Amino acid sequence: MIYLDNAGSTIVDEEVLKLFIEDNTNNFANPSSLNGFGMKENYDIVNYKRDILNILKLNPSTYDVIFTSGATESNNLAILGYARKNKNKGKHLITSKIEHPSVLNVFKELEKEGFDVTYLDIKEDGTIDLDYFKSILRAETILVSLMYVNNECGCVLNLEEIKDIINKSNNKKIVFHSDLAQTLGKEKVNCSLFDMLTISSYKIHGIKGIGALIKKRNIELEPLVYGGGQEFNLRSGTLSYPLIHSFAFIVKKYTKDFEKNYAYVQSLYYFTFDELNKINGIKVHDKFKRHCPFIINFSTTSKESSIVVEALSNKEIYVSTKSSCSSKLKVISHVIYELTKNENEATNSIRISFSKYNTIDEISVFINSLKEILNNIKGR
Amino acid sequence: MIYLDNAGSTIVDEEVLKLFIEDNTNNFANPSSLNGFGMKENYDIVNYKRDILNILKLNPSTYDVIFTSGATESNNLAILGYARKNKNKGKHLITSKIEHPSVLNVFKELEKEGFDVTYLDIKEDGTIDLDYFKSILRAETILVSLMYVNNECGCVLNLEEIKDIINKSNNKKIVFHSDLAQTLGKEKVNCSLFDMLTISSYKIHGIKGIGALIKKRNIELEPLVYGGGQEFNLRSGTLSYPLIHSFAFIVKKYTKDFEKNYAYVQSLYYFTFDELNKINGIKVHDKFKRHCPFIINFSTTSKESSIVVEALSNKEIYVSTKSSCSSKLKVISHVIYELTKNENEATNSIRISFSKYNTIDEISVFINSLKEILNNIKGR
Repeated sequence: MIYLDNAGSTIVDEEVLKLFIEDNTNNFANPSSLNGFGMKENYDIVNYKRDILNILKLNPSTYDVIFTSGATESNNLAILGYARKNKNKGKHLITSKIEHPSVLNVFKELEKEGFDVTYLDIKEDGTIDLDYFKSILRAETILVSLMYVNNECGCVLNLEEIKDIINKSNNKKIVFHSDLAQTLGKEKVNCSLFDMLTISSYKIHGIKGIGALIKKRNIELEPLVYGGGQEFNLRSGTLSYPLIHSFAFIVKKYTKDFEKNYAYVQSLYYFTFDELNKINGIKVHDKFKRHCPFIINFSTTSKESSIVVEALSNKEIYVSTKSSCSSKLKVISHVIYELTKNENEATNSIRISFSKYNTIDEISVFINSLKEILNNIKGR
Repeated sequence: MIYLDNAGSTIVDEEVLKLFIEDNTNNFANPSSLNGFGMKENYDIVNYKRDILNILKLNPSTYDVIFTSGATESNNLAILGYARKNKNKGKHLITSKIEHPSVLNVFKELEKEGFDVTYLDIKEDGTIDLDYFKSILRAETILVSLMYVNNECGCVLNLEEIKDIINKSNNKKIVFHSDLAQTLGKEKVNCSLFDMLTISSYKIHGIKGIGALIKKRNIELEPLVYGGGQEFNLRSGTLSYPLIHSFAFIVKKYTKDFEKNYAYVQSLYYFTFDELNKINGIKVHDKFKRHCPFIINFSTTSKESSIVVEALSNKEIYVSTKSSCSSKLKVISHVIYELTKNENEATNSIRISFSKYNTIDEISVFINSLKEILNNIKGR
């Protein structure tokens, strides 16, 4: 198998699995239980939170970690939770047109609840127009949510400059949230730019089912679920010690090796980029000012991407697309459409995404297979 | 260690862990990915859902399974989701005073949102007064949510008779939900009594972080989170193939061995019950018409339960209580209070809960330690 869908999910790290097994045997109590077993686990969890904050260079006396089931829930808790709780302060919210559905669809819901949402255009170079951003800030603006690394095309938004504008505005109410699910461990970012940030485990070889919302302590949110009052009353439900421990472990391990992984994946990226550009019938989306090397997106300009992806799958080469042959469903990539305004390119976009486990040999096999498939498919 | 807090959490089954490791190595794709790897996983997940429905003797052409992070989220999705989506049909909701906080606190939230909630008393024998229940049903009643086995005292509510009354009422709008987190694998129940039911993995030796809401297909809910549209658009977020597979596996394994486990745990229960009743300064709560043998609750009548639980913890014997010495917090058990109307008994209640791994020898050690502790603690 050649797995090039690492922005979709990653293989789990072996040390993580070992730890998970140990914890499920030795630390299986309910951390809310008021006996010595549960209380010891609860104590450890507080430390794992501090570990994560320290790794992200966030001050544990300013920020809280709230464990969730993953990035979707974290984004919902941040955005729905903040908007619903603070609607008396203002009803204007800002996001971009290239956010993940777990951000975009939350804002669509909030529009139904009476909020006014500005969806920012992203320029072809993968940045936000700063003058325009400046012009839309109002006294009623209470929340800006923008991702750093985009999950479909890998462009890195200019959030440092956005933060600067927010700081210089006279509106002290604005809370800045960022979905860092595709950023953590894959692109250097100054986390303290943000008042709230979303991170996830399974994009960096952790286990699926755990993520976190990190937020400044003074920010008030409305919970999505009610119950036992765990996580500062913001996210009820029994905490999973094994999942939490495994998450803290992989965040530590993966960010420790960041420089090495980044340089290695960058070498894969340059090789792939050059090879893709030599192939006829392909357009690589790479006009970005900054590009995270873990993700490359291209469109098949003369063939249907769904057929190409299926043919690759038959050779056990796995990449990602928005449409499938079997469902006969043509789904447009909203990200590629926003960047290109070309419906054909957006419908036939293919994402390949790397991990540190991929090799140049694998990429060569992928490139040759892709050429062969593009040559062999008759018509569209 | 002697672990008698199995209603709080259970040790994970070894076969489950083996399967989980395999899946995290072999089935680590994102089931939403439209390549052969993800689509194969998605296909399997549909089958795991059917397996769960078959085991619970629910018709897969009538019921859907929605995977969640656990029972708290399932209860929230069922109750918040149904009430918010169907408020135009009526605003009267019914539950009981002895539900889990993930049910009770949801109803408290719904009261703030304008719903009228009836909280049913539970009689000392652990049943609902049927005449009273009949008397409160109205044309505006749209939802009844009642647990089967209670998580704190083990009483089994008379839901068969409740269902009968709902059926005979002229109100066809009423949806009947039950939190079966403490019932699955521990007490025989006819699942088809319910239109919606909550189940969880980690109370039956599965992994923490996965549960499900099972519901009749025609019931419409409002989602708690928005995003990629997974789970019939009712629960967005990447599905965890390894967690789902492990959940389906343990539901199958645990329910297959139900009769054997039940008889064994019943023998532990009778032994413990007899021994506890011989101890001075203890009142066992066991006046119930039906009692699930996995849970026994008693109150220390002359000593503080928090001190007793701490002393047991020091001997590595783990049981459950509502108050802890360290937090100096006196938390009353709302369940024991409802059943006894005695504040002292409710504050000093202790729950012990069994699994198939407990032994008579362990119980003997526990009983002797308890006697010793009760004799040695000076005053209250």
